[in-house]
Amino acid sequence: MESPDSREASTQAAPRRRGRPPSPVLSRGKITTAALAVVARVGYEGLTMAALAHELRTAPSALYNHVKSKDEVLNWVQDDVCETIDTSGFGAGPWDLALTRWAYSYREAFAPHPPLIPIIAVFPVAGAPHTLAMYERVAAGLRDGGWPEDMVVDVIVAVESFVLGSAMDVSAPEGIFDVGDRPELAPTFAAAVSARPARGAASADTAFGLGLSALVAGLRGTLAAVRATRG
Amino acid sequence: MESPDSREASTQAAPRRRGRPPSPVLSRGKITTAALAVVARVGYEGLTMAALAHELRTAPSALYNHVKSKDEVLNWVQDDVCETIDTSGFGAGPWDLALTRWAYSYREAFAPHPPLIPIIAVFPVAGAPHTLAMYERVAAGLRDGGWPEDMVVDVIVAVESFVLGSAMDVSAPEGIFDVGDRPELAPTFAAAVSARPARGAASADTAFGLGLSALVAGLRGTLAAVRATRG
Repeated sequence: MESPDSREASTQAAPRRRGRPPSPVLSRGKITTAALAVVARVGYEGLTMAALAHELRTAPSALYNHVKSKDEVLNWVQDDVCETIDTSGFGAGPWDLALTRWAYSYREAFAPHPPLIPIIAVFPVAGAPHTLAMYERVAAGLRDGGWPEDMVVDVIVAVESFVLGSAMDVSAPEGIFDVGDRPELAPTFAAAVSARPARGAASADTAFGLGLSALVAGLRGTLAAVRATRG
Repeated sequence: MESPDSREASTQAAPRRRGRPPSPVLSRGKITTAALAVVARVGYEGLTMAALAHELRTAPSALYNHVKSKDEVLNWVQDDVCETIDTSGFGAGPWDLALTRWAYSYREAFAPHPPLIPIIAVFPVAGAPHTLAMYERVAAGLRDGGWPEDMVVDVIVAVESFVLGSAMDVSAPEGIFDVGDRPELAPTFAAAVSARPARGAASADTAFGLGLSALVAGLRGTLAAVRATRG
């Protein structure tokens, strides 16, 4: 794999042909960046190998030399996003604090890519080494925190469900809860919407913070009850 | 608006023309059903007024006589799905039990329509009377349960985020957490996946039940703390 610098140099040195833009040397980084751009513009269904090749200003056949399918592209995208998620709390402190930090970082990683959220929510983890490394650190942290092995994945899935649902909420429009021209249909709700202190992205942050602290506190209670029962 | 029976009768009575299938009389119900079918097949981006007209075997111009835009179609779809969600617990018992029943029913309403989940998560509620009626009952139930008015919407958004994230998880493939051909990358996680008692849809149910009871228990604690502080 070439470094970015040598790649730039080779592109500049290549002779230009009339009417054909220079075709950049493909790399995993360029392909995943282009895939995110295509998904952001035309959605997941619009992400085809042809559309991706067009975005990269290359021929589909050249793209297929680097990546074998749309699924492999998505595997790379998932793995690149998961690599940025902070799991450093696990092993360094109590599981509940580590889980909270992980959840904040996880939401922050996916919030900028709304169309990816429902895809990644159901995307297999096999073959994505950074994603597997993330789950390994979380699972070990929960186990070391006292969670029974058979409950570890359910705790992870529950927190992930809340995180991914909250990541979608970040892109909700400002007036999503405006009652419109018939406030008499929902007077209590309209008053509650007006009384909400925060607005826009800040209101999503407030709801996320409220829900995450409640979820984690509830999980502390669940773990205490399970340990009391199982001994 | 004709009743379904009279509509069937008029369709049957219409003379058939060679090579043209009979064009059914359009109704809000037929349009929302067709929209769900198009979204299920080709995704949200594929839901255009042209695709919807094709699905309904009618001309786009005929469709535009009944509904003015894709946004209005989605408003109808959202409202039809929300109409099925159970809010009967609110006003009939404690807020936490009502919230739990609402969350189960909400997830059940959206789980069959994965492509709709990210759309509805950010779709404005104005002009959707059943949706507004749902939020009104939830908001009134939370207020009557003692939640301060300025926290009611954040509680709703937090629970909705968990519900919609969990609704996505229902359609996750059976082997989503299979570690693949490199188990040494995530041995603790792989052991936890193997130790998970439930499989498939049942495992999604287990994770949802665990997370929801923790979230609601945590919210009970939050409310007690808020009331102690605010007096």
